[in-house]
Amino acid sequence: MSILNTKPISDGYRMPAEYEPHLGTVLIWPVRPGSWTNAGLEAKVTFTEIARAIAKSEKCFLLCDKEHFEEVNEIFKNDKNIQIINIDTDDAWARDIGPTCVINDTGDIRGIDWSFNAWGGDYDGLYAHYDRDDKAASAICDALSLDYYNAKHFVLEGGSIHSDGEGTILVTESCLLSPGRNPQMSKEQIELELKTYLNAEKIIWLPRGIEGDETNEHVDNVCAFVGPAEVVLAWTDDDKDQQWIPSNESLKVLEKETDAKGRHFTIHKLPIPKNPVFITLDELNSLEFEEGEDTREEGERLAASYVNFYITNDGILIPQFNDENDEIAVNMMQKLFPTRKIYPIYARPIIVGGGNIHCITQQIPLGNRK
Amino acid sequence: MSILNTKPISDGYRMPAEYEPHLGTVLIWPVRPGSWTNAGLEAKVTFTEIARAIAKSEKCFLLCDKEHFEEVNEIFKNDKNIQIINIDTDDAWARDIGPTCVINDTGDIRGIDWSFNAWGGDYDGLYAHYDRDDKAASAICDALSLDYYNAKHFVLEGGSIHSDGEGTILVTESCLLSPGRNPQMSKEQIELELKTYLNAEKIIWLPRGIEGDETNEHVDNVCAFVGPAEVVLAWTDDDKDQQWIPSNESLKVLEKETDAKGRHFTIHKLPIPKNPVFITLDELNSLEFEEGEDTREEGERLAASYVNFYITNDGILIPQFNDENDEIAVNMMQKLFPTRKIYPIYARPIIVGGGNIHCITQQIPLGNRK
Repeated sequence: MSILNTKPISDGYRMPAEYEPHLGTVLIWPVRPGSWTNAGLEAKVTFTEIARAIAKSEKCFLLCDKEHFEEVNEIFKNDKNIQIINIDTDDAWARDIGPTCVINDTGDIRGIDWSFNAWGGDYDGLYAHYDRDDKAASAICDALSLDYYNAKHFVLEGGSIHSDGEGTILVTESCLLSPGRNPQMSKEQIELELKTYLNAEKIIWLPRGIEGDETNEHVDNVCAFVGPAEVVLAWTDDDKDQQWIPSNESLKVLEKETDAKGRHFTIHKLPIPKNPVFITLDELNSLEFEEGEDTREEGERLAASYVNFYITNDGILIPQFNDENDEIAVNMMQKLFPTRKIYPIYARPIIVGGGNIHCITQQIPLGNRK
Repeated sequence: MSILNTKPISDGYRMPAEYEPHLGTVLIWPVRPGSWTNAGLEAKVTFTEIARAIAKSEKCFLLCDKEHFEEVNEIFKNDKNIQIINIDTDDAWARDIGPTCVINDTGDIRGIDWSFNAWGGDYDGLYAHYDRDDKAASAICDALSLDYYNAKHFVLEGGSIHSDGEGTILVTESCLLSPGRNPQMSKEQIELELKTYLNAEKIIWLPRGIEGDETNEHVDNVCAFVGPAEVVLAWTDDDKDQQWIPSNESLKVLEKETDAKGRHFTIHKLPIPKNPVFITLDELNSLEFEEGEDTREEGERLAASYVNFYITNDGILIPQFNDENDEIAVNMMQKLFPTRKIYPIYARPIIVGGGNIHCITQQIPLGNRK
């Protein structure tokens, strides 16, 4: 498809909110031995559950390498809404390596092809070889017949931005200002890139995300739009929890700020799991790290947050941790999205990999495509 | 290895109790699309957990076909106690297709190679092609360097017998007298075969097993030895439950009978799950049956029972069903086996396949082998 060197803002394309209608969702089959316990054994079960939940109301574009193509075809051969696409990647984080899609007023869809450097490149990236991940966005656009904007001068992951579709973008300073992304740019220059490519008028900078999140604390783990000028914020009332300070700092920003339309935010505090989630020795032993890959240590706290949910056309896929707050999170999200079905998904196999449901998905807006 | 046409009883070999020391346990990698949801996706996670629990205190001999050899090697490459053996089978029920092992007073071990006809052959067998399953016992004996007795004139599955190692064998009439096994033999002739091959003096015939168990109600789902003259019996106090009559009939037999040594039984009532377990439409849709294979129907009750536990050298692997009786079963088994560790295993992926933990394992006694 065509590679565009113009800018979305000039062409009249904007990034929609996740709760606007989708054509479908990109997922990637999890096989990387350093991310997924037992080379994906447990994660494949969870990804399958997620693919089928997505496919209830929209298409699921499931990327898979050649080696696992037969396995995936066998599992999904009766799932008509799940389309398997052979694209090789380095891992399975569709949110971060997939295209950010923008839409114009007549419903045309285009992708944006950012640069990807495994969450920090030489500075603090999580793996050394990410060529295939970096090429994934353009390959996905080609497979889905989407023209895409060349934004390779700018390092960005999809999980580090949230859009309300009405000109407001949420980000975290910890991530976007990290020396591992675009160290040659000032905060103002980075703002300008976001405004230019996402067609946004206002960038809301939260100081940090979820403590321990190895993406330099992506916004999608800590704060998300649930409607115009309405967000959920990961929260703890326990002032001894390491999350207490970052959540309170974000709250202060959100209470003070207004969005692109000048509206104050309605802020819903979504509790983090009551019991912190730690990686076990058994899980650690079932991972295998390659040279240059960030490793984990026994007892490392995993960045567990209910905010890492994903919105499909008919539902909310929300992570569950076998925690007493699971039900509270489900009930809160049901109240916030009364017309959508809640799909609770036991997410341990994903958080051990370093992310959660939102991180492994990337929506393709519906637009006027058939 | 040598095929023996003599009889264990004449050679001084007896079948030990499961709680006598093991060399190891046979497991088979689950891949049959008609038994395991998503061609084994969920079951592989559970089998992996079981293999590693076994490997804590004994060897695990994991059988796998050529097609999945690489996958299995990748998963278990750091598990020193898990030995992967390439033997092709039709499914993964090691209990029923593996050799029944017998031991003599000097600690020599031999196998018994029964005939296997998929739980009933043309009469009511569960699949039409079971050649590889029927050859599995001799192949396992060859792989483990065990001589084995030729008992191909007699149809028997390992799950249909329990031994106390002291001359007493537990069976069910519903299974051993089914026309699908050895219809040319009388009950007395069948008793004689068991006594001859297992070196037993007394066969205790329970009328039935667990209602709905498609093995014609194997004994290993309803009643098991936990020590000499001591058993657990699957139980319900609800006289409206379909299990109430079979469990009460078995209780009457056990209360009246004595074992081979003339001892009365101590009987522990182990509750069945409080909520019956039914197969869901999603699970059903993720199975694929071949021609001649017994199918399932939506809402079919699965034969869920805690009695289908498995005893290893250091532990008890006990099925869990996300049921309020899970904890009761765990606590009861811990009291009955105070020196062993309890490994609770969420067993839904196995019961959807038609059996449980005991059904997918087969112990190899320790004897004097290195």
